[in-house]
Amino acid sequence: MQTFIDTATLQQMEQRKRAMLVNSIGGYKWVSLIGTTDENKNTNLAIFSSLFHLGANPALVGFIVRPDSVDRHTLSNILATKVYTINHVNENIYKKAHQTSARYERDISEFDATGLTAQFKNNFAAPYVNESNIQMGVFFKERIDLTINGTILIIGEIIQLYYPKDCICADGFIDIEKANTITCSGLDSYHSTNKLSRLSYAKTDEQTTTITSAYID
Amino acid sequence: MQTFIDTATLQQMEQRKRAMLVNSIGGYKWVSLIGTTDENKNTNLAIFSSLFHLGANPALVGFIVRPDSVDRHTLSNILATKVYTINHVNENIYKKAHQTSARYERDISEFDATGLTAQFKNNFAAPYVNESNIQMGVFFKERIDLTINGTILIIGEIIQLYYPKDCICADGFIDIEKANTITCSGLDSYHSTNKLSRLSYAKTDEQTTTITSAYID
Repeated sequence: MQTFIDTATLQQMEQRKRAMLVNSIGGYKWVSLIGTTDENKNTNLAIFSSLFHLGANPALVGFIVRPDSVDRHTLSNILATKVYTINHVNENIYKKAHQTSARYERDISEFDATGLTAQFKNNFAAPYVNESNIQMGVFFKERIDLTINGTILIIGEIIQLYYPKDCICADGFIDIEKANTITCSGLDSYHSTNKLSRLSYAKTDEQTTTITSAYID
Repeated sequence: MQTFIDTATLQQMEQRKRAMLVNSIGGYKWVSLIGTTDENKNTNLAIFSSLFHLGANPALVGFIVRPDSVDRHTLSNILATKVYTINHVNENIYKKAHQTSARYERDISEFDATGLTAQFKNNFAAPYVNESNIQMGVFFKERIDLTINGTILIIGEIIQLYYPKDCICADGFIDIEKANTITCSGLDSYHSTNKLSRLSYAKTDEQTTTITSAYID
């Protein structure tokens, strides 16, 4: 049995319930920790689930910021320093990652508050999360204000990338499930994954088939 | 052991390998089928994994279109008719869903080519996918050209929504795992999920705890 709701029903819904509902129909999400510093090198860490792949050449990633939320420290730090890190969340750290969404004061680092470890490496000015297995150093490229609802799209270029040596395949595929990356749904639901299969490039004159990953290591 | 690569390494990589790599580090994604018609009511169906939640009030969803790809029919149909559907992919249909990414000619409907069923209901002009358990009817709101790489951000408002009756919780959370929704990683890897837990709203003065979902049905 399917339930049907329309705009009128959505609009009548209590605000928090509507936020929960509309967030959770938005599919599984790339949940990551974004690490930044302010101009005085004080670290900040925040969980985001609005990240998306934007392009491979150059390697671009986008995410949505809500300036009236805890996102605001991340936003001001990125605009001030131009760099940030994106760190995949795994099963070992997801509770600490979720805890970064609390409204800590500006002078409190979420690294200290949650017990996650800030890691500086390869001359990158923003902190990586040491407990994360897949890490990206990103350079800020563009801010686009989405006037339709007051959110902001931040676009950056991935200029550093770290992944576990045994997770890369000959065709360039990085097996994020093997790296223990997890996903989330809605505002608060976290999920690990089970690979169903990889499928071959789809062609009009044949059915797609299963691909076997060829790990390099 | 972690592997480190930088921009120079990425730029030297063969194009298809780089696309595979950068796509797959982009975390787990909301994979859905977008259903449209052209002005003559010919149906079209295409798989997208660039969708993201943009806001709950109004209920907005965004996705990225690459105009030089098979996305182009979806784009021209949305601009012509102003409506489209977003249909979650589940384990029973993911191979057919992937098959919609083949470069079918304009006059071939991917519904016919893959055996998925177009469903028209509640006076909505775009076709839903009958085999999908969570379906959204979306009204086109805004097109934003991202000059940085020639992609296009399409923003729409969710005006119809369908979900299985036994998947909604008292707080508005829709359990998409219970609805058999799956996720994808990279260009071709499909994954089912295992719930780890839902976590309480994070506060600065206490540790987050596990939430038990209260299903209505």
